[in-house]
Amino acid sequence: MLRVLVINGPNLNTLGWREPELYGQETLSDVEALCMATGEAMDMKVDCFQANGEGEIVERIHAARGVYDGIALNAGAYTHTSIALRDALLGVAIPFVELHLSNTHAREPFRHHSFLADRALGVVSGFGATSYTLAFDGLLQHLRAAAAGS
Amino acid sequence: MLRVLVINGPNLNTLGWREPELYGQETLSDVEALCMATGEAMDMKVDCFQANGEGEIVERIHAARGVYDGIALNAGAYTHTSIALRDALLGVAIPFVELHLSNTHAREPFRHHSFLADRALGVVSGFGATSYTLAFDGLLQHLRAAAAGS
Amino acid sequence: MLRVLVINGPNLNTLGWREPELYGQETLSDVEALCMATGEAMDMKVDCFQANGEGEIVERIHAARGVYDGIALNAGAYTHTSIALRDALLGVAIPFVELHLSNTHAREPFRHHSFLADRALGVVSGFGATSYTLAFDGLLQHLRAAAAGS
Amino acid sequence: MLRVLVINGPNLNTLGWREPELYGQETLSDVEALCMATGEAMDMKVDCFQANGEGEIVERIHAARGVYDGIALNAGAYTHTSIALRDALLGVAIPFVELHLSNTHAREPFRHHSFLADRALGVVSGFGATSYTLAFDGLLQHLRAAAAGS
Amino acid sequence: MLRVLVINGPNLNTLGWREPELYGQETLSDVEALCMATGEAMDMKVDCFQANGEGEIVERIHAARGVYDGIALNAGAYTHTSIALRDALLGVAIPFVELHLSNTHAREPFRHHSFLADRALGVVSGFGATSYTLAFDGLLQHLRAAAAGS
Amino acid sequence: MLRVLVINGPNLNTLGWREPELYGQETLSDVEALCMATGEAMDMKVDCFQANGEGEIVERIHAARGVYDGIALNAGAYTHTSIALRDALLGVAIPFVELHLSNTHAREPFRHHSFLADRALGVVSGFGATSYTLAFDGLLQHLRAAAAGS
Amino acid sequence: MLRVLVINGPNLNTLGWREPELYGQETLSDVEALCMATGEAMDMKVDCFQANGEGEIVERIHAARGVYDGIALNAGAYTHTSIALRDALLGVAIPFVELHLSNTHAREPFRHHSFLADRALGVVSGFGATSYTLAFDGLLQHLRAAAAGS
Amino acid sequence: MLRVLVINGPNLNTLGWREPELYGQETLSDVEALCMATGEAMDMKVDCFQANGEGEIVERIHAARGVYDGIALNAGAYTHTSIALRDALLGVAIPFVELHLSNTHAREPFRHHSFLADRALGVVSGFGATSYTLAFDGLLQHLRAAAAGS
Amino acid sequence: MLRVLVINGPNLNTLGWREPELYGQETLSDVEALCMATGEAMDMKVDCFQANGEGEIVERIHAARGVYDGIALNAGAYTHTSIALRDALLGVAIPFVELHLSNTHAREPFRHHSFLADRALGVVSGFGATSYTLAFDGLLQHLRAAAAGS
Amino acid sequence: MLRVLVINGPNLNTLGWREPELYGQETLSDVEALCMATGEAMDMKVDCFQANGEGEIVERIHAARGVYDGIALNAGAYTHTSIALRDALLGVAIPFVELHLSNTHAREPFRHHSFLADRALGVVSGFGATSYTLAFDGLLQHLRAAAAGS
Amino acid sequence: MLRVLVINGPNLNTLGWREPELYGQETLSDVEALCMATGEAMDMKVDCFQANGEGEIVERIHAARGVYDGIALNAGAYTHTSIALRDALLGVAIPFVELHLSNTHAREPFRHHSFLADRALGVVSGFGATSYTLAFDGLLQHLRAAAAGS
Amino acid sequence: MLRVLVINGPNLNTLGWREPELYGQETLSDVEALCMATGEAMDMKVDCFQANGEGEIVERIHAARGVYDGIALNAGAYTHTSIALRDALLGVAIPFVELHLSNTHAREPFRHHSFLADRALGVVSGFGATSYTLAFDGLLQHLRAAAAGS
Repeated sequence: MLRVLVINGPNLNTLGWREPELYGQETLSDVEALCMATGEAMDMKVDCFQANGEGEIVERIHAARGVYDGIALNAGAYTHTSIALRDALLGVAIPFVELHLSNTHAREPFRHHSFLADRALGVVSGFGATSYTLAFDGLLQHLRAAAAGS
Repeated sequence: MLRVLVINGPNLNTLGWREPELYGQETLSDVEALCMATGEAMDMKVDCFQANGEGEIVERIHAARGVYDGIALNAGAYTHTSIALRDALLGVAIPFVELHLSNTHAREPFRHHSFLADRALGVVSGFGATSYTLAFDGLLQHLRAAAAGS
Repeated sequence: MLRVLVINGPNLNTLGWREPELYGQETLSDVEALCMATGEAMDMKVDCFQANGEGEIVERIHAARGVYDGIALNAGAYTHTSIALRDALLGVAIPFVELHLSNTHAREPFRHHSFLADRALGVVSGFGATSYTLAFDGLLQHLRAAAAGS
Repeated sequence: MLRVLVINGPNLNTLGWREPELYGQETLSDVEALCMATGEAMDMKVDCFQANGEGEIVERIHAARGVYDGIALNAGAYTHTSIALRDALLGVAIPFVELHLSNTHAREPFRHHSFLADRALGVVSGFGATSYTLAFDGLLQHLRAAAAGS
Repeated sequence: MLRVLVINGPNLNTLGWREPELYGQETLSDVEALCMATGEAMDMKVDCFQANGEGEIVERIHAARGVYDGIALNAGAYTHTSIALRDALLGVAIPFVELHLSNTHAREPFRHHSFLADRALGVVSGFGATSYTLAFDGLLQHLRAAAAGS
Repeated sequence: MLRVLVINGPNLNTLGWREPELYGQETLSDVEALCMATGEAMDMKVDCFQANGEGEIVERIHAARGVYDGIALNAGAYTHTSIALRDALLGVAIPFVELHLSNTHAREPFRHHSFLADRALGVVSGFGATSYTLAFDGLLQHLRAAAAGS
Repeated sequence: MLRVLVINGPNLNTLGWREPELYGQETLSDVEALCMATGEAMDMKVDCFQANGEGEIVERIHAARGVYDGIALNAGAYTHTSIALRDALLGVAIPFVELHLSNTHAREPFRHHSFLADRALGVVSGFGATSYTLAFDGLLQHLRAAAAGS
Repeated sequence: MLRVLVINGPNLNTLGWREPELYGQETLSDVEALCMATGEAMDMKVDCFQANGEGEIVERIHAARGVYDGIALNAGAYTHTSIALRDALLGVAIPFVELHLSNTHAREPFRHHSFLADRALGVVSGFGATSYTLAFDGLLQHLRAAAAGS
Repeated sequence: MLRVLVINGPNLNTLGWREPELYGQETLSDVEALCMATGEAMDMKVDCFQANGEGEIVERIHAARGVYDGIALNAGAYTHTSIALRDALLGVAIPFVELHLSNTHAREPFRHHSFLADRALGVVSGFGATSYTLAFDGLLQHLRAAAAGS
Repeated sequence: MLRVLVINGPNLNTLGWREPELYGQETLSDVEALCMATGEAMDMKVDCFQANGEGEIVERIHAARGVYDGIALNAGAYTHTSIALRDALLGVAIPFVELHLSNTHAREPFRHHSFLADRALGVVSGFGATSYTLAFDGLLQHLRAAAAGS
Repeated sequence: MLRVLVINGPNLNTLGWREPELYGQETLSDVEALCMATGEAMDMKVDCFQANGEGEIVERIHAARGVYDGIALNAGAYTHTSIALRDALLGVAIPFVELHLSNTHAREPFRHHSFLADRALGVVSGFGATSYTLAFDGLLQHLRAAAAGS
Repeated sequence: MLRVLVINGPNLNTLGWREPELYGQETLSDVEALCMATGEAMDMKVDCFQANGEGEIVERIHAARGVYDGIALNAGAYTHTSIALRDALLGVAIPFVELHLSNTHAREPFRHHSFLADRALGVVSGFGATSYTLAFDGLLQHLRAAAAGS
């Protein structure tokens, strides 16, 4: 059974009341429940984590080593500013999908660059909470193909 | 029943033998068959189109007006060079998803910019042929939510 | 009698329903009829051409050599991306006016640069369909002055 | 009867002897007479103004508020360096056309940027003195359409 | 009674001994006492907070939602590097003033850009501890005017 | 008794009718009256000056030498384009505060750079007419501290 | 016997009358005859192709797969704008030489960048029609060396 | 007898008390007296002019047409911001020398670019008041050589 | 006896399993033991600290004030993104050496810039764990020379 | 009989053992022998020169004036850094071909710019030692055509 | 016994009297004596070389091939301008350490880029003459580890 | 008696036949004779030096230390590429004037930047051989003023 870690970065604990025209009405609990349900439907074990501190997320990624087969990562603002997250992901070498609720290309220019995307398995952005289920689906198929190939 | 048009841009007719380490072993026929099957499973009507000429794709988009509810678009190289495609998409005002087989962020810098992405519903890249099914899924959920909201 | 060729580039066949707040309500037929009428009033012979393919427009320009005295060119999106059009225009060496329905300076930054303008006789933008009649007027006066000067 | 103000910026008082290969042989008096005649033919009331000082032009624009329906503006070198003119034009909120005798795109790079164009109704450049009559024509048609629409 | 939160970012706990030629001789306690006194004089309820961690400040901003009417924010170094703070401020939608003890324009180029300023009510920099009282004054007048307008 | 000169640059004579959503409803007279009143309350002698010409402002600054202890300067558009003003201010060596009615960081990119700010005592922007009183307050405290230190 | 395909891009069908001071007096027929003769002299089988459309050239490259051992490519304007051509060339993986009649480094800056050159076997520019024979020679020697090495 | 006009731009009327460590202790009167004396010694007729307004300098240049054989120009801050001055100088087509008291290359980056230098006969900077006599000398020798050559 | 603080930033707790081809096989314990041993051999008192949070490192630097004579700092990813660390180091004014295990110049461009290096005593990079002993050696000699000079 | 000088720049004396995967196995002697043989076959007189010093190559070019009809120049690293070589070549005004063994476009970005290419007759790169024979061929045909034209 | 070559580039022969506040009081002889002594202490054979000419240093590097196991290189100004040195170092493929007496990051921006650093084993800068002993130490440990690993 | 060294850089030995439209008809001997005569007239001892090698010029500057009071330097192409020359000049700390025969601002963009100018006493360009006498004059007056001031 594949194990997947969902990581939500800064400000994602405020989903529901944070700029709902951009991020939708669902709360973080809703999103995490959707992830758990999706994981169950896909026969994957899912854990969820959220933090606002760069260091905390770095450490959660460290702890994922050897425990998870894949990471679904919505790094929020740290996508655009954190080389430490990039280094943590490269260190644990777990396949990850970068995902965003909003379409970052339709926003401020400083959201067009990601310090993570070139090392991600793939990127999904703009579908609201559905971005998580798409990321799960993409991750699952990649992991199964990789398993089949090994 | 929702109607979706799949558009594949230049060089995608050569899938299967084109740089398979980047684009995978599936042919365009395989990808289109996957799209048809996915559409059927999702209860959507799907048509597929591929062309290598910028003008032909522009005209196919024009013809989509009033016929399709959504477009799944892999514009290939034109993603990075064609303002004409952008204009065609803005003209018909059909929601579209930008998708890529490979992770464009992991490639040459000139593939990091898209003339389309900021006006797309969402973007999916890097999952190989699975990018198409993710795009379908994202499009479907968006269209259903929009229909429910109207 | 002076002969003028009107060339409309990609997406201009969709005038009327294409982003009417930017491009107005007139169709391409309306615009071409206006051009014919204006030409007649100015005692010029006018032909109109529209195409969405870069190569087709290049070839239409080639064919204009020795046939037309001036070109009124709305190259649409190709204004900003096509060096091939520039080369075709330099090759035939027919005086041309670059024109736009919308004010390109008020739009996305990538519409602020033209590959054609520095070799044009003049540029007119932002007056809607009236841009065509202004272009005709400017072209006519230039050609008559040039004829008078020769 | 529509009222139009023609503003000519720095160095335009030297027309006739200023780089005639670029700006033509007509003097400022010739150009203003052409404007008056064109206005009369179009049934518009026309006033002409020229100044070399940025502050004087700013103040002339202020004084135009409530007096003129449109401005035909050849701001000369201030097109490329004056934010104060932009602010004055935004302040009075009178529709204006930016015009140039020469084709600014065919000259030094610092003449390719305008601080005014994105807020203009339209832009005309490169037709010599004819640029003024084209600007009048475009302005007139815009004002009449706006009047008809109101 | 208006409620205002004062947030001081990284290294501001070292005021007094930190580069006193730039930041002055007052300690953070002095500054916070000044804020409390100023607030009292203006009949505002004031709370003060300082942290060195980006995540902690993000969370303090979250907790301010519904509790404070305005924020006086000296984000220190995070002004120039933190998109997470920007997102937190946009999320809670509380009017805030960006303030700095030193004149950031007179220092290294990387201090000339702020990720916060374009969404601030206003910016005050360069007045030492007086920047806080100016920020209070500006915030108060804005909030009273807004209250009067509602 | 401290003497302060208030300088308002181009277009500020049009306050009241100039883009009121940006600059507010107060006229220049209102703003100058506010400055006089504030100065009186602070026991400072205040004079006010406005001009639209760069050269006139330069000369007013020259004349301030030896007469005023501080300058509150809203240079308007010249903030972003005038090195001559910078040179005049450096020449007279009178402490000055740069102020703006609107938040320049929230506007066009060319308003984000100031030729004056790095040599100002401090900067205040975005508080409408209140920016003037904040500037007075900051200037006063600086001058008193400087006087006390000398 | 080695097989070589000569591809000429947009506007090269107008050789002879196109800016002869840059491109010489020879027509496309002359150039193709030279290629045929050179090929014969070098004991290579040569085919020639010219098109003005990006899509047509892309498709001609696709069709070259398995048929030709090398390509001599004068992509004209598409050298500087077409990623689709790059992708087609990478897809078929046939060694190619990029060639130009004129010295592109001596012309407009936008002709200094090539989307193809870094993946070419080599580049030849500036020798007029002789560029084709140099390209043939370079290609031949490379292919023979490669054959010898295999 | 050669006639030379000396033009001093903004803030140069404050020489003597303006940043003397950069500009020296001499007043404008001293500099102009030096110019008169140097001119006399070189058997040239010299007139001096200073203004702080861009428009006034433009007009003084206009008036120089047909009256002076050369211009020694210290445009001060307008060197770096005024295209209007450039246009005036190009219009009158009088040979001019660009000169500066200070070494502009040793100062802020925005003083490294000149809108005038590429059209000047030559440039002299950094020698204090001596820059004027060097400029006179260079101008004189150029004018005499030109006269000899004609 | 000189006192030195070794600070290791984000992800350095994962040494040993983190990209060992870049960072080597030694663990953080190995590196810290090497530092302790080197310090002892050099007759310096050494303490070691590692954290993944920017705020924690900032606070550790604050606490070093008055306690340590020098800092050997491997700030990892924060080298390239943290102005807060720079400010903390400038605040405590303790001489520090910037060090890196890998050669940052041989990696991604965003690792070529450091927010710390221009204020460091010196920089050492690329020698693996040996970078620490070189840093110690350089720091020791600097501190002894400074002590001798005082 | 045409006379050609072959100039090889820095490090080309190490051909054979210098990065052979880039530059091939042939030594400088081999390359020069090839040049001599090619020249003989083409009935041209050939001399060869190699130096590692910029000044020596400059002087060799000076000495070529009036002695050689053409130069085949592989300037190596100086291609990208030496304006002195450019000046020497412009001074002697001998037609030259710029050539490279490797494809410089496929290497580091700083090898993409040449200080020589825009003034060369033509450029050949990427064909290994064959680049020299191609350069000879191109030079010969140019010189013969020029001779025929004179 | 390991053999190391010390190379000092332009102006390093003037150590002692060259900007001593930057480079220290030691002469080149002092530095070379330090190198010899350090080498002896480390049981390495050391030779020292200094030259001011780029070509001479290139040739000294060539001659090092097969003779030295490592190079300690202070290329001085050529660090920032010489691709020829880079090519020479890549050609001989001897491990080298880039070192600087001063902290180049604390100086002019053009000293922040090195054409050598990305191919160096490591970089040491800012420690004065101690930089040489650190470089020796780092080189020695690398060479011994490499020897042990082979 | 003041002693001045004249240094001429690369290609200046070819004056007379080198691009005479830019550099004039005088030979280096003529220029040096002019310098000697000017020096004599000004009662200065003058020596002249020319070299094409960067290293040779560096060494000539070293040797000037303690021997000359000033340097008149036409560094030619090395003005724009040599940091080594800058370092040599800073090392000897002799006042120098940067001079050019042609107006470098009117030429290619890469001639607009100087690595020397910001540390020069002053700059003279564009006066042909007269630039040398102007430089002498400026240098003399500076040295005399400095002597008078000491």
